[in-house]
Amino acid sequence: MTHSDLTILVIDENAIRSSIIEEGLRQAGHGNVTVIHDAQGVGRIIENLRPDVIVIDLENPNRDMLESMFQLSRSVKRPIAMFVDRSDQSMIEAAVEAGVSAYIVDGLRQERVKPILDMAISRFNAFSKMARELEEARSELENRKIIDRAKGILMKSKGLSEEEAYRLLRKTAMNQNRKIGEIAQSLVMAAGLLEK
Amino acid sequence: MTHSDLTILVIDENAIRSSIIEEGLRQAGHGNVTVIHDAQGVGRIIENLRPDVIVIDLENPNRDMLESMFQLSRSVKRPIAMFVDRSDQSMIEAAVEAGVSAYIVDGLRQERVKPILDMAISRFNAFSKMARELEEARSELENRKIIDRAKGILMKSKGLSEEEAYRLLRKTAMNQNRKIGEIAQSLVMAAGLLEK
Repeated sequence: MTHSDLTILVIDENAIRSSIIEEGLRQAGHGNVTVIHDAQGVGRIIENLRPDVIVIDLENPNRDMLESMFQLSRSVKRPIAMFVDRSDQSMIEAAVEAGVSAYIVDGLRQERVKPILDMAISRFNAFSKMARELEEARSELENRKIIDRAKGILMKSKGLSEEEAYRLLRKTAMNQNRKIGEIAQSLVMAAGLLEK
Repeated sequence: MTHSDLTILVIDENAIRSSIIEEGLRQAGHGNVTVIHDAQGVGRIIENLRPDVIVIDLENPNRDMLESMFQLSRSVKRPIAMFVDRSDQSMIEAAVEAGVSAYIVDGLRQERVKPILDMAISRFNAFSKMARELEEARSELENRKIIDRAKGILMKSKGLSEEEAYRLLRKTAMNQNRKIGEIAQSLVMAAGLLEK
């Protein structure tokens, strides 16, 4: 997908500022832009529109407004570029923490909308890739731990070798059309329940 | 450490632009600022100065210049804020890829220097934390795999149970004052060499 095919949602309560953003997007070749001026009900709009990028302009937000936008950022898992006119260090930290991909303090200008959008997408992709890798590594580790525990239980209770225990787990998984980690999980739980 | 105690290195070939950055830093209360106007020999300067943050202003860089700064970014493992006057999507991606914490296209203004610096630091910290977690999860996984293989070798060659094999590895590690993963690594390697 080239960036000009993107579905973009702009949330901006200020009509003048939102027209700056719209014009910046239009000049950058983005035709698929939806603008809303009220953040109420934005969750449902996002569900229906499924935007590729969300641009939020908050001008001079209060804490509650910021927090509700950060909450949105955490839940939507999409690139978000956010413009604010002022911000202190703790708000900047909170924005990064909430996964806001580009947080622009006092920098809204028409010509800058496109590079900021590109940046938000690049950063979001890089971050998502690493988050996915972390998730995979952790889940593989958990999987290995639980399989080890299940093997140990089988070795002890049935006098099997490690290899035999593993084969039994694998065979059970195949027969039940489930993952070996799931079988191991069930076995470990059951052994806990049955323990005298 | 509050941000005003930071040691900051500014790399800028343009004296007018670097004075904008310096003034922005000064107004934000940053006193510990070193400015260099020539990127030659910057590696040694960084080694000696050990800056907490690096600000790079490139105005209108060519590809080679950008690439050498991205190379610097990959090697220094510090927050970097980079200002350029123009950039296309591929350069933006390359900057993110190289770990540039804040990459500002056409947005150099004195008042913006502080929030951009704060942002670079926050992003760098968030990214480093996740990179560290990924590194830990992967190394624990590798560790577990190699210990499993070493246990398997001991069980087969010495007729031990899994528990006995593990105890033998652990005891050897303690006696040699090394980590159990290192002992396992040596054993797996030796078994490979000795294989008939």
